[in-house]
Amino acid sequence: MTDFKYLFYPGPSKPYAQISGYVSDAIQKNILGLNHRSSQFVEIVRQTRKMLGQKWKIPKNYRVFFCASATECWEIVLQNWVLKENIHVFNGAFGEKWADYAAQLCPRAKIKCFPFGIEERLPTHFQGECDSVICLTHNETSNGTYLPEECILEIKKNNPDALIALDATSSMGGFNLHWQLGDIWLASVQKCIGLPAGMALLICSERAIERALQINLSQHYNSITRLEANMQQFQTTHTPNTLGIYLLYRLLQDLPPLAEQAKHLQIRAASLYSFFDNEIDLLSPLVQNPSLRSPSVITLSAQVEVIQKIKRKAEENTILLGNGYGTWKNTTIRIANFPAINDSDFDFLKDFFSTLNLGST
Amino acid sequence: MTDFKYLFYPGPSKPYAQISGYVSDAIQKNILGLNHRSSQFVEIVRQTRKMLGQKWKIPKNYRVFFCASATECWEIVLQNWVLKENIHVFNGAFGEKWADYAAQLCPRAKIKCFPFGIEERLPTHFQGECDSVICLTHNETSNGTYLPEECILEIKKNNPDALIALDATSSMGGFNLHWQLGDIWLASVQKCIGLPAGMALLICSERAIERALQINLSQHYNSITRLEANMQQFQTTHTPNTLGIYLLYRLLQDLPPLAEQAKHLQIRAASLYSFFDNEIDLLSPLVQNPSLRSPSVITLSAQVEVIQKIKRKAEENTILLGNGYGTWKNTTIRIANFPAINDSDFDFLKDFFSTLNLGST
Repeated sequence: MTDFKYLFYPGPSKPYAQISGYVSDAIQKNILGLNHRSSQFVEIVRQTRKMLGQKWKIPKNYRVFFCASATECWEIVLQNWVLKENIHVFNGAFGEKWADYAAQLCPRAKIKCFPFGIEERLPTHFQGECDSVICLTHNETSNGTYLPEECILEIKKNNPDALIALDATSSMGGFNLHWQLGDIWLASVQKCIGLPAGMALLICSERAIERALQINLSQHYNSITRLEANMQQFQTTHTPNTLGIYLLYRLLQDLPPLAEQAKHLQIRAASLYSFFDNEIDLLSPLVQNPSLRSPSVITLSAQVEVIQKIKRKAEENTILLGNGYGTWKNTTIRIANFPAINDSDFDFLKDFFSTLNLGST
Repeated sequence: MTDFKYLFYPGPSKPYAQISGYVSDAIQKNILGLNHRSSQFVEIVRQTRKMLGQKWKIPKNYRVFFCASATECWEIVLQNWVLKENIHVFNGAFGEKWADYAAQLCPRAKIKCFPFGIEERLPTHFQGECDSVICLTHNETSNGTYLPEECILEIKKNNPDALIALDATSSMGGFNLHWQLGDIWLASVQKCIGLPAGMALLICSERAIERALQINLSQHYNSITRLEANMQQFQTTHTPNTLGIYLLYRLLQDLPPLAEQAKHLQIRAASLYSFFDNEIDLLSPLVQNPSLRSPSVITLSAQVEVIQKIKRKAEENTILLGNGYGTWKNTTIRIANFPAINDSDFDFLKDFFSTLNLGST
């Protein structure tokens, strides 16, 4: 087993270094032994929600639920809000998976798919029925693209009655998200949020909650009606990942406001794209259009042999890079530009690429 | 917020003291940054399953899945195996909740309920259809009873075609379970297993897996067909609680065989029951029949005023006791006798009760 020192895999990825200390505190203070319905633990959940308002600027009328994975969140969206029609717009593997999942889970609904290319802007021409959910992938981890805000806004304007659901798994926690653009935001915590895997956040507008309550599905333990009834008291329908919630609470207290972190991430992304655009031969960003390049998942493209050599040499240098995914499996590598990764790690990474002679075999 | 030093809540309960060190190791070795499909992480899952065979004696032909909560496992059982008929036998709140859940989730199935009293042995007279699942609560956390093995065996003999599913949430990890008695075992890890909340184990016999593959439900991300296809390669359908799996792996390596731990737990339980039977006035075990008393959840009964006084005095002594639950909410307290709790904590607890004058107001 290679002992990697430099982790750039886009998820699960390197968690914040502070985690270990937080866990020690949690054990010393007996937080982990608290019942999740005790007043002490409920207070931690309440404070966590408060911090998400202060540091992440999540509006007060948006509800935050704690789930187990982004995949579970996909299921919750499809089960709770999709009746007659659902719209999926995607340009990569994760968006497509969500659409495939919808086709299986909602056999009675009309699932409309609008695939688009990685150099194209998000299509906005379609119209959804009033009961439809429009499922978008805010940051497509498989190819390193992300959605320009103005396109999401246009979709919102064209579809005033539909709910906009955004999978922000590799952007939430690193991007200064404009929450009002979406009705449902979901993300697992092991990517841009920088926490250990095993938890996800599902963030819903008042409108989304109201519609779920009207639809009133309640047969699943994770039905929105049940989640909402519990979360009104800062509780969950079942025993949640209490350590995950506590870690998020501690992290939010210690980190600067998200807007500052996002700024830093953007600057670092610009520097990385410039580096790979200009300084490294035989390897270049997969996405040519700069306005579509994800700041948090940098995807680099090369010939198969070059990719193989990079991976081999990276491993020798204890650097873990993300493999290519789906269509781009053998011709790309992916580099997570997540807030938990230090600037010095990126300096090491750049040095590695600078001294690597990709032309030789 | 009271800073409790002595935790006896039956779940989430005190995790093993070693957890903090394991988390430090996980961060230092960059385990948390490993992709869950990487060969390194797959090896951890493989080793964890191997250790469960060695230390817990889970048979090789039983499959272990990693889920998010026991509640999710309830849903998985109901979704994957219940067709025409389902049988629920219970004497407490958690068993009843599972039955209520079945009635909502499986509206087309005939849900047969066999409630029984806390002083009664598990009824065994019923017969299930060949497609039925017989859902039992191995250790009922709400009242501190558990099921004698010979009754489970009798049910098994009377219902050769049904699958026996056992919720062992507050017994798995502390009891020397005879796995062959059941086809489906489920438990969350924050009780008797002594890990932080946010994970559950679902353990299935070959017969259970085969039946699920025949039924072939696949629309959910946690459908058994999908879980099984992934677990054949020691992988999961989605990003699991990788820290939880790693903690279980480390814990299994360090702990003695489960049979030894179970022996210790039984001796401690016998001593506790004897203490409360004989030495404390005005407070006595809720369950009179010794053969039905749970070794891991000691439930003690008294007048409402006495219970209130105990709770108040316990809090003053930084002792966290479990509240009563459901029917027994105001007239019982519960004490977790889980392996992660030290003998010295129980000495402190006994001293507390010995010096408490319950007769005075």
